[in-house]
Amino acid sequence: MPHTASRRGPGRPPAAKAAETRERILRSARQVFSELGYDAATFQAIALRADLTRPAINHYFPNKRALFAEVVERTNALVIAAGVERAQTATTLVGRLEAFLVAAVQADSEDRSAAAFMVAAVLESQRHPELRQDGNDALQGSRDFVAWAVNEAIKAGELTTDTDVTSLVEMLVAVFWGMGFYAGFVGDHEQLERITDQLKLLLEHRLWRLKPAK
Amino acid sequence: MPHTASRRGPGRPPAAKAAETRERILRSARQVFSELGYDAATFQAIALRADLTRPAINHYFPNKRALFAEVVERTNALVIAAGVERAQTATTLVGRLEAFLVAAVQADSEDRSAAAFMVAAVLESQRHPELRQDGNDALQGSRDFVAWAVNEAIKAGELTTDTDVTSLVEMLVAVFWGMGFYAGFVGDHEQLERITDQLKLLLEHRLWRLKPAK
Repeated sequence: MPHTASRRGPGRPPAAKAAETRERILRSARQVFSELGYDAATFQAIALRADLTRPAINHYFPNKRALFAEVVERTNALVIAAGVERAQTATTLVGRLEAFLVAAVQADSEDRSAAAFMVAAVLESQRHPELRQDGNDALQGSRDFVAWAVNEAIKAGELTTDTDVTSLVEMLVAVFWGMGFYAGFVGDHEQLERITDQLKLLLEHRLWRLKPAK
Repeated sequence: MPHTASRRGPGRPPAAKAAETRERILRSARQVFSELGYDAATFQAIALRADLTRPAINHYFPNKRALFAEVVERTNALVIAAGVERAQTATTLVGRLEAFLVAAVQADSEDRSAAAFMVAAVLESQRHPELRQDGNDALQGSRDFVAWAVNEAIKAGELTTDTDVTSLVEMLVAVFWGMGFYAGFVGDHEQLERITDQLKLLLEHRLWRLKPAK
């Protein structure tokens, strides 16, 4: 392990090892960014988490902003891109929304820090406008997906609704981010699976049978 | 204005003025905590926002933790307690959930920093476990409210559902916090009102009429 703390210093690792180390840094950085926030997440803290030296981190990432941008990109790929891909296999609006949710829940089972990071990154992008410039906005990614699913449903004549489509999209985006907030900061993975099942029922209008009040 | 920056120093203001100044500090602190995060929110930054001196803040609050705890308490009263009170006037489950949402949206129109602060406070309480000990957990407050509304509906025979009540409550909590996240970090007040209308339709199972896919 050429990049663990030792008297040898960083050196140049073989390609496979380098990719693995890079992955390890990104995973540790995601955890540290979401736990401590952008300002408090030093390369030192990330190195400690990854069991590497601080210069080793610098060998792969020139600065914190570049590292943060890549964590954003990877996390969006893990959650948003996976959700979008999964939704392609579904054929109805609710089916697509649910497929997206299932993929997001699966990403949560693989790396519990993803949801927390995504929520924290939205807060950070308000605190640090320069982070917004680096693109890969998860909020916009989720909005684009929901807008696509709703528009497909309208085109296919599947969805008949009198409502304002823009507000419908925004509401669904808010609901999805509520699930992400829950995954990142409230419940464990099993609870997330169970509330996702409840949300599916709500989206299908099968959550409850309400009797009129007397 | 005895507490604005001047050579006089803090002094002891008359009671009405003191209450007003205290209010001003709390409001500025809420903004600064949610914008900068707990660590970066210094008394200096809060004083600047409130147009007061740093010693003036100290005159009212011994330390940051005490100030933060009071902002949490006030914000929960503004949003959660107002929502709970409003819900008492409704008689059905969906009516109660909607009344809570309306009160929260109204709180948002009065002070746009409330929702952002509540979401940020959940993140902060994970970063700083000592803040959790100070109680007034908004997450638990929202959960208690939803659990009450669901249980009332079950007792009244209004709700017939085969679903797991605990997961139903958690799902609704996640949805509500999604609205809070949206209010604090995504949309403006008008958008919040419009997505809340969409959410009401979803809760009433009136959001869309889905035709079966061919």
